[in-house]
Formats: sequence, C-alpha cells, structure tokens
Amino acid sequence: MEISEGHPRYRSLMARERIVCMVDEGMVTPTGMISHGRGEAYDYLLGEATIVPAEQAERVAAAYLLEAINPVICVNGNAAALAGEELAALARLVPAKLEVNLFHRTPERMTKVVAHMESFGIEVLGLEPDASIPGIASDRALCTMEGIHDADVVLVPIEDGDRAEALVQAGKVVIAIDLNPLSRTSRAATVPVVDEVTRAVPNIGRHVKAMRGDSGLRRRTIKSFDAEDCIDAVLVNICDHLMGDRGD
Amino acid sequence: MEISEGHPRYRSLMARERIVCMVDEGMVTPTGMISHGRGEAYDYLLGEATIVPAEQAERVAAAYLLEAINPVICVNGNAAALAGEELAALARLVPAKLEVNLFHRTPERMTKVVAHMESFGIEVLGLEPDASIPGIASDRALCTMEGIHDADVVLVPIEDGDRAEALVQAGKVVIAIDLNPLSRTSRAATVPVVDEVTRAVPNIGRHVKAMRGDSGLRRRTIKSFDAEDCIDAVLVNICDHLMGDRGD
Repeated sequence: MEISEGHPRYRSLMARERIVCMVDEGMVTPTGMISHGRGEAYDYLLGEATIVPAEQAERVAAAYLLEAINPVICVNGNAAALAGEELAALARLVPAKLEVNLFHRTPERMTKVVAHMESFGIEVLGLEPDASIPGIASDRALCTMEGIHDADVVLVPIEDGDRAEALVQAGKVVIAIDLNPLSRTSRAATVPVVDEVTRAVPNIGRHVKAMRGDSGLRRRTIKSFDAEDCIDAVLVNICDHLMGDRGD
Repeated sequence: MEISEGHPRYRSLMARERIVCMVDEGMVTPTGMISHGRGEAYDYLLGEATIVPAEQAERVAAAYLLEAINPVICVNGNAAALAGEELAALARLVPAKLEVNLFHRTPERMTKVVAHMESFGIEVLGLEPDASIPGIASDRALCTMEGIHDADVVLVPIEDGDRAEALVQAGKVVIAIDLNPLSRTSRAATVPVVDEVTRAVPNIGRHVKAMRGDSGLRRRTIKSFDAEDCIDAVLVNICDHLMGDRGD
C-alpha cells in the first residue's frame, strides 16, 4: 500500500502499516491489531494531535522520570512496533532502564521484541525474569528484579488495566500512555498521558531536556498535577471536538 | 479463551473472538481487526447499548426497506463474521436481496464469505459480478446488476466511506450501520444507524414486523427523519456519557 506524505492522516496510516508488518513478523499478536484499532478511534476523537492536558501530563512524566531513583520504561509488542526507536531514545536520554514485558508472552515473541529493541543500540531487560509483580496471576506478572520490580517510576505505554493497577498497588509511580481516557489504565495511573505513543514519547523527551537542570521546577510541576483533573480536561476537550463537528 | 456469560462485556468479548476466528479462517482480513477495534472503542463510548437516536434510525431503516422496490443488503467480511445470521434473517424477513461485496476482494475470500452466508439458508449474490458502482476505481466497484446496481435502497453495515458516498451519488437510499458517528459513511448515509451491528440488525427486523402493514406510518416515519439531527443527537449522547464519567 502506498501512502503519500501529504495525506492528512499520513501518520495514522503509517502506524497502521507498521502494526500490520509487525504482526507478519510475529512481534505483535493478531489481537494487538484490535487494540490498535481502538487506539485509532480514540486518537481520531483527539483530532490526532497532542491536546493541552496531554502536553501537561507529558511534562509531569518528564519530571517524575528525572526525579526517579530507578526509572523503568516497559515495552510490549505494540509499543515496540509503534515507537521502539522513540522509546529507546527516551531511555537513553533520561537515562532509564528499558524492560520488555509482553501481554501474550512466548519465548519466540520475547526474543523478537527484545532483539528489535536492542537494534536501537540499548541494553534491554526482560528476557530472564527473576521476579514478579504482586497481584497478577499468570506469566504476565514476570519481570526482573533490577528493572520493573525495583523501579520507583515506570512508564507504561499501551498497558493493560490489570498490570497498571498492580503496579500502582505495588507503590510505584505509574506514567501511562493510553489513548482511552476512561480505560482502567488511564484511571489507575499516577500520570495518565492521553496521547498517541509516537507523539507522546518525543514530547516527554523534550520536557526531560528542558527540566534536566531544575529539580525545584520538577517538584513544583509534580506537586501541581492532579490526574483526575487531567482526565476531566481530556474529556472536555474530546466533547468540544465532537460538538464542534455537529452540523450547524 | 473462556468468557463467562455473566461478564459485563460478554457480548463485546464474544464479538472479538468471532472476528479473530474468522481471520484464522480467511474470511476477515487482518486489517479487518483494526477496523473492529475502532468499532469497539466507539461502542464503548455509546455504553455498548442502543441509544435513542440509533433506535430511531433503525425504525426509519425498516420503513425504507419495506417501501423499497429492490432493497439489497450488502455484506462484507466483518459484517458476515459478526452478524451473518442476523443479516440473513433480515433479508428473509423484509424480503431483501443479499449481496456479498468485499473491500479486499479475492476469489478465495469471496467464495468463503458467500458460502458462510449461504449456510444460513438464503440465496447470495456477488460471486459473479456483471456491473459496477460508478465513481469507484478498482474492483471494489464490482457488483451485480440485479443486486446493488439496480437497488433503490441499500443497507451497508460497516461500509467504507468511498463506497457509501458513491452509492449515495448513484441516487440510492443508503442505510449505514457504523459505530463512528463522524465517519464519512455515517455522514454520507441517508440513514446513519450508529449502533453495533448485532444489536442494530435485529432491531431493524423488529421494526420491519411492526410497520409491515402500515405504509402511511412508514412514509411519515421517513419524512420526519433528519440524518444530520440524528448524528447531532448521537454526539450529544456520547458527550453526556463521557461527561457523566468525569470524576466529581
């Protein structure tokens, strides 16, 4: 399929193509495409752009990542497919550890996703789990002691609700990147970033650069953030967009 | 995967399973899963229930189908997978012709989807197209003379925007079943039914039974309907739902 760069939905269509390719390569499960479709729908409601409350959450995310003692970026198949390079760049920038953690875990998929992330020149955790996230049954709980288990701040792009809630329960600061403002992940997160992952991750990186030298600013940024207010602002924004599309 | 009937999202999860199965069987294309995911997201915003403006559109759809000289129900892979039986039952009830018309047309998929629909005991058009829909390039235009080409009223569940617009341009009454109220399909349709297909089709059937004997009622029902007002009402409903979910 050919998509011209001038197409108004170029980024969205390219992301879709990447997901389809990654399913063919076995990195993304077929049901990962359903999840991607849900994301497309929510992004459409946002106007396929970073809205103001998302930008604010991205700033808070950067502040938390810089303040963290052991920040970890969790990467699953969809996140690796859509924004592997951006996530690796953010891990290097903060710096944060990066751990692969699949929803449908098989040795083959783990190997493929880890190799894909390593191809961006960073060290990747997750292939040899030696710990687990409390409160989750099944091998979705598997993680590494030095990575997710001992993290104080985790960035979870496109995470499922059970895992996000369990990470919050485990006392971690959870930064979620999730296009559905009403998902359990968004509602559970310390910082719900309601934005598309390839926009959100570079935005967070930009704020990391801007706030690197100013711990006072970071702490004030964190202190002034309210996750519930942020989600409310996202909902208001979506409704303004929807109602603006009403025929008059 | 086991899903208990008591699960609050039982119907949605079962529909997802059906789509995944049909991909395995080659009836639905992998990108059909992305489209299904988009539908899941929009249905979530509707509360996974038939909202009032959808019920009204379903009543108007029934009126149009009964008033038609040559009503045709168009079926693609996703529609066949999700609601093949319901669509066959509606075709028998009206009665309307049923024509298979795929977005990604291959002889293998045509054969499979036609066989699937025939398994519900009805005659199915589309395997041997002898006409085309004006204004559409590629074999997406292919149709039969006795079916879509000569139809005055077409029901298009889960249709793409180009085809829906071309059918309207060709002078047909287009009844769309589409969960995205802002899609080109919904905006182009004479009757945009913003509802999930397995809910919408039986609802239309119920209205067909209720209005069968009363042409006056059918004409009044059609005359009083305004597609743009209907979509506006859907958007208001979605926003009420979203804003009702704000944290207070």
